[in-house]
Amino acid sequence: MIETSQYLKSLAIKSPTLLLDKKKVKRNIKKMTGKAEESGVQLRPHFKTHQSAEIGSWFKEFGITSITVSSSDMAIYFANYGWSDITIACLINILEIDKMNLLAAKIRLNILVDSEIAISSIRENLKHPVQVWLKIDAGYGRTGVVWDDWKQILHLVRLIQQSSNLSFAGLLTHSGHSYQAKSVAEIRDIHKQVQAKLAAIKGKLGDQLSRGFGISIGDTPSCSIVDDFSGLDEIRPGNFVFNDIMQHKLGVCSADEIAVAVACPVIGKYEDRRQVVVHGGAVHFSKEYILDQNKRKIFGYLASIENGSWNQVKHKSTMISLTQEHGIIEVDDLLFGQIEIGQLLLILPIHSCLTANLYQEYKTLDGEIISRL
Amino acid sequence: MIETSQYLKSLAIKSPTLLLDKKKVKRNIKKMTGKAEESGVQLRPHFKTHQSAEIGSWFKEFGITSITVSSSDMAIYFANYGWSDITIACLINILEIDKMNLLAAKIRLNILVDSEIAISSIRENLKHPVQVWLKIDAGYGRTGVVWDDWKQILHLVRLIQQSSNLSFAGLLTHSGHSYQAKSVAEIRDIHKQVQAKLAAIKGKLGDQLSRGFGISIGDTPSCSIVDDFSGLDEIRPGNFVFNDIMQHKLGVCSADEIAVAVACPVIGKYEDRRQVVVHGGAVHFSKEYILDQNKRKIFGYLASIENGSWNQVKHKSTMISLTQEHGIIEVDDLLFGQIEIGQLLLILPIHSCLTANLYQEYKTLDGEIISRL
Repeated sequence: MIETSQYLKSLAIKSPTLLLDKKKVKRNIKKMTGKAEESGVQLRPHFKTHQSAEIGSWFKEFGITSITVSSSDMAIYFANYGWSDITIACLINILEIDKMNLLAAKIRLNILVDSEIAISSIRENLKHPVQVWLKIDAGYGRTGVVWDDWKQILHLVRLIQQSSNLSFAGLLTHSGHSYQAKSVAEIRDIHKQVQAKLAAIKGKLGDQLSRGFGISIGDTPSCSIVDDFSGLDEIRPGNFVFNDIMQHKLGVCSADEIAVAVACPVIGKYEDRRQVVVHGGAVHFSKEYILDQNKRKIFGYLASIENGSWNQVKHKSTMISLTQEHGIIEVDDLLFGQIEIGQLLLILPIHSCLTANLYQEYKTLDGEIISRL
Repeated sequence: MIETSQYLKSLAIKSPTLLLDKKKVKRNIKKMTGKAEESGVQLRPHFKTHQSAEIGSWFKEFGITSITVSSSDMAIYFANYGWSDITIACLINILEIDKMNLLAAKIRLNILVDSEIAISSIRENLKHPVQVWLKIDAGYGRTGVVWDDWKQILHLVRLIQQSSNLSFAGLLTHSGHSYQAKSVAEIRDIHKQVQAKLAAIKGKLGDQLSRGFGISIGDTPSCSIVDDFSGLDEIRPGNFVFNDIMQHKLGVCSADEIAVAVACPVIGKYEDRRQVVVHGGAVHFSKEYILDQNKRKIFGYLASIENGSWNQVKHKSTMISLTQEHGIIEVDDLLFGQIEIGQLLLILPIHSCLTANLYQEYKTLDGEIISRL
């Protein structure tokens, strides 16, 4: 841990800092873009994970031209950085019609609906053409028309198609329930079911109504693990750009593919409990956790830096508690002997999207500062 | 819910917004300052909850002159707004000696230590006098010297007293385990034990060493519920300024005393599940939760506004799920009939400190904007 601390100190870090391994990020982007290309699906990466114009520009190097975001503010930010084909993958907030009009005047704007009230609102209030996706609930149970409610699906598709300023883009779903999977096999099962459900809707809609529309799916676990994207036109994974402990636990990535980490100063050391305490709490990690075999919460694991890159340490190094500004890390005897007050530790986060959201910027392993929305 | 939505729309709210009930905040401040005065203890409120210079200024109206913060950046922020007696209630981060020197040159700076390495570091590197508190672990198990480790306590107090630039301020503890209490009686028990432990240390230290030092405790549950502060000189509660569902569940405050809430637009409505979905997720609330009787997670409750003030609605209105940008709220039939897509809902947060930390500003019920660090 001494070398890791020295490396972090060479970057002039003194307080909790969000670190980015640029090489891993580019490798993660390359892997997913390569996979999409081989599988013949369009990759529309979700930028809510990184929310950074500069990281977005790295995707351009791999041929990405269309993106996903989760709020109108994010869409405006990326539109200002030249992205001209953006999906806001959150049901449209009809109170934000003004922002939608601003965006639709400037870019190819894709929005999501699952209700008549939303369709009526945009039909009446949007002054520019937009692409409208019908959100389908294919098993997750958050938003969307339930996949086998044919009557409602047909009704809403007709409403969209009857509106001159709305283009029916297709069916869009997000299988967030893949995050609850207990195994890679279960993720594959969920994906197959979703494929079948979407194919069934397409069949029901018939040629007349379905002409030219696309099918779009979203979650990183499925997109990372599955190879068969038949029947699908577009995938919108986001988390893969950074990955995290949650994805690693799901079996979706290797620990080596986790591309963000938080550097934290050690402020306390307690021999009887084999615990060290860092300045680094819920406001630096979020309170997302995974459970260990004994149902005990885990908020992160230590990583060490070797040859200019980090990886999870092989020894026991579990962040077992997070309060507003404090993290408690339990380590084994060997690590305990190597950690001292005043060192910097590197901690892999459970959920990279929520962790990154707590910072204004990233620092790369070369000391470069990368700003965020 | 229609009146509440209309009220929120009159404040020009269109997306997730952190709301402040200024009257409740001032009432909460008045209650705690009054209690401290009656009990004869110094109130040094923890400003990590609100992190706002303007809200800080409201405390001045009630005679508060000394404050607590949880990071050097927060100390610098409030020092720049004229606060001249600040405790950083997190063990000193010895990597931040430069910031400590800047602060100690300007204000009466109070810092916390629990190790020889920290004391040596500040003795050697601090150029200005500071007040040094010895952090005691009186049962919480996060940081501090364990309360009955007399030998270590005596050793560290002597080290502090032998340093010409360090003034021994006293013993400081934070009973964070009160948040795990199952009843008000249990909170009282924890408080009594902590009082007894701190008194025991004072007795052990003896007159010579202990001359003039103070004893400081921290947590809002104890400070809100307990009336007997005998043997204590200072209390440092923070959360009481806003309160939240967690404090309410602990029995520490009434629902009526919760002074922050989040306004969120309704984007989805699902009749079969009696659920509505808002744009308002983990990035607007934090993932803090409480458990209901069936061990199901609860992330917030709906509130309604009447006569210019809000309170928790009497009907079932439970936020049962939070993902990055979405919240799912389960309501009863009556509420379900009153809620429509495009309305604004008001949601009381589980943990106000972590929720407020996700915003740059507050909006009051009068539409005033109040900025934060």
